[in-house]
Amino acid sequence: MKKIIVFGSTGSVGQNALKVIGKNKGKFKVTGLCTNKNIKVLLSQIKEFSPSYVCVRDQAQADKIGKSLEKRIRLFKGEKGLEEFAALESDISLMAISGISCLKPLLINIKYAKRIALANKESIVAAGSLVFKEAKKFHTEILPIDSEINALFQLINISKNGKCMNGNFRKVYLTASGGALVDYTKKELANVGIKQVLAHPTWKMGKRITVDSATLVNKAFEVIETHYFFGIPFKDIGITIHKESAVHALVEFKDNTLLACIYPPDMRKPISFALHYPQRFNSGKRLDFSNSFSYSFSPINYDKYPLIEIVLGAAKRKDNGLVVLNACDEVAIDYFLGQRIKFTDIYKAMAHIYSKYPRHKVKNINDVFFWDNWARIKTKDYLNRL
Amino acid sequence: MKKIIVFGSTGSVGQNALKVIGKNKGKFKVTGLCTNKNIKVLLSQIKEFSPSYVCVRDQAQADKIGKSLEKRIRLFKGEKGLEEFAALESDISLMAISGISCLKPLLINIKYAKRIALANKESIVAAGSLVFKEAKKFHTEILPIDSEINALFQLINISKNGKCMNGNFRKVYLTASGGALVDYTKKELANVGIKQVLAHPTWKMGKRITVDSATLVNKAFEVIETHYFFGIPFKDIGITIHKESAVHALVEFKDNTLLACIYPPDMRKPISFALHYPQRFNSGKRLDFSNSFSYSFSPINYDKYPLIEIVLGAAKRKDNGLVVLNACDEVAIDYFLGQRIKFTDIYKAMAHIYSKYPRHKVKNINDVFFWDNWARIKTKDYLNRL
Repeated sequence: MKKIIVFGSTGSVGQNALKVIGKNKGKFKVTGLCTNKNIKVLLSQIKEFSPSYVCVRDQAQADKIGKSLEKRIRLFKGEKGLEEFAALESDISLMAISGISCLKPLLINIKYAKRIALANKESIVAAGSLVFKEAKKFHTEILPIDSEINALFQLINISKNGKCMNGNFRKVYLTASGGALVDYTKKELANVGIKQVLAHPTWKMGKRITVDSATLVNKAFEVIETHYFFGIPFKDIGITIHKESAVHALVEFKDNTLLACIYPPDMRKPISFALHYPQRFNSGKRLDFSNSFSYSFSPINYDKYPLIEIVLGAAKRKDNGLVVLNACDEVAIDYFLGQRIKFTDIYKAMAHIYSKYPRHKVKNINDVFFWDNWARIKTKDYLNRL
Repeated sequence: MKKIIVFGSTGSVGQNALKVIGKNKGKFKVTGLCTNKNIKVLLSQIKEFSPSYVCVRDQAQADKIGKSLEKRIRLFKGEKGLEEFAALESDISLMAISGISCLKPLLINIKYAKRIALANKESIVAAGSLVFKEAKKFHTEILPIDSEINALFQLINISKNGKCMNGNFRKVYLTASGGALVDYTKKELANVGIKQVLAHPTWKMGKRITVDSATLVNKAFEVIETHYFFGIPFKDIGITIHKESAVHALVEFKDNTLLACIYPPDMRKPISFALHYPQRFNSGKRLDFSNSFSYSFSPINYDKYPLIEIVLGAAKRKDNGLVVLNACDEVAIDYFLGQRIKFTDIYKAMAHIYSKYPRHKVKNINDVFFWDNWARIKTKDYLNRL
């Protein structure tokens, strides 16, 4: 039985992960569950999985839940509690805390987990080098849960190990559904509301990533993940719009043959892969060849999606640019979801911060949080003046 | 330098193979060329590749060419000559003789070649067990050139050797363009002419295989190839109509993830793969993601394509059924191309022979030729009476 700790168990990925684990209870034992403040869902998860350790990051909510827990369960409270919780040992840690606040527990947990199934993008975007340096140091395996990166992991593992592959690939492609606004013109974007932006056609996800899918910032982040996970130069990572979200990634070999990784969109698939690897177990739907269907591919309109170039521009600088853009993006999305700014003001904020930030190297986690905080203040200043 | 002998050098596959070889003259040395009777093309190939051995199967044409060859070239004439030619040693034999007449030289050559890049389907359809038994006995590697089977070879090799694959696939899918008549109704098929049938939308191939693509007999033959090449049970081999001929095959793993092998249709790709394996060299066009494109998939209308079930019915019997159907198909196509019967009479002939042939085991090559001959006579009898 593999001991699993789920960080961010009440979020979209966390809940899906527990569904996968719930179907394989003979194989996995959930030893720890951690949420920010969604106590209601947490309590039902505790009932089903009987973990020994529970963490509630929000101090007030933690105090509330304390009384209702059985005595055998150890409760970790608040930020300090989360740091101690992250130092528990596990066979697999499923890391699905959202936003940059995942970075600290991740860096701690790398020392104590054998494998980390990583759903959080922001920690790789803001601190990819740091994370993988630590993982190498502590021989911790990091497996991506993000569907496109997970698909690439499958395809690239194949090409390294397969007899006929020799690692001879020349380029990789990530697919992008294009998000909820794929069929809108650039002009129409100025007036879209929250409902329209959150109506993602193929994936049900958290709110921030759904907005990031509509701006394609999410895809730029995945390019960065691809760079850090597999050491692939930015120039060899392509993006293609694929509305159906069934082809998740492709690799192109030297002889111009491509391999594609395909399945009907379902977050439980990459989660199940990352938990069972190197085995495979039945999960999600089969592709149904008894029906007619078609898959479309089209190039990205960079004029409509200017944030890709901004984010990747920052990525290539290898400075604090990604830290500040990630923070700016999160703040701007919060403002948009709070109906304080227009959708296209997210674009403006990002362009503004990108043009203004003082360039510095990011040497450690303190630098990350310094520049993250700096960008949050500057972004708020800017958006409040709009 | 690898010594290569090309059997069927003047046909469509043979000529494409020499194009591939011509681009890698430092890697390959063509030591032998063999044609049935296309002396004009053969002479230009001899000029370019300077082989030491040349074979012309047709005795009359062989006598003609004899005088014009340099003395250092050894000429093999007629059927007997072909058998001697097939006993020459090679690093790679490219076996692209068409029809069942490939079987005898193939079975001889298996003893003398290190690798056989096999383009001929009929020898596998009629005598798959015999061929692979011999290949195993003489440790001869057989690599498929047929694009779909070649794609499966790539995908299955991956899954056997790749760390994350464990050979855990549950099903394979072959794609079928549907041939020239894919958009015709069943009723319209009765009146199609030669021109319409030979107008294959995606592949330029020989005439028989183009007609076989229109009846989907070709696809049933590929199912049989898949069965014998990879030992996959017939029930685990699916077919899907894919008009664009860019996705050549797919494998489905236990977790319902599929891998697809993709490239713009071009016979030089699988030929190049089979010659260079396990290396990969630039060949054919790259898939162009700067354009919009889409790939369609749809189920097969078995009512319109009844020959698939007849051919696969015979395949599952494991008797002489495939030998007789292959011969019947070849004769019927000859009659159709000679404008002696209608397109749908091919269907009738196949159904007739399938219902009438006396079932016997095929133990050796003599049995193959006995039943091949039997079916040719019976098919002609039947078609002449139509």
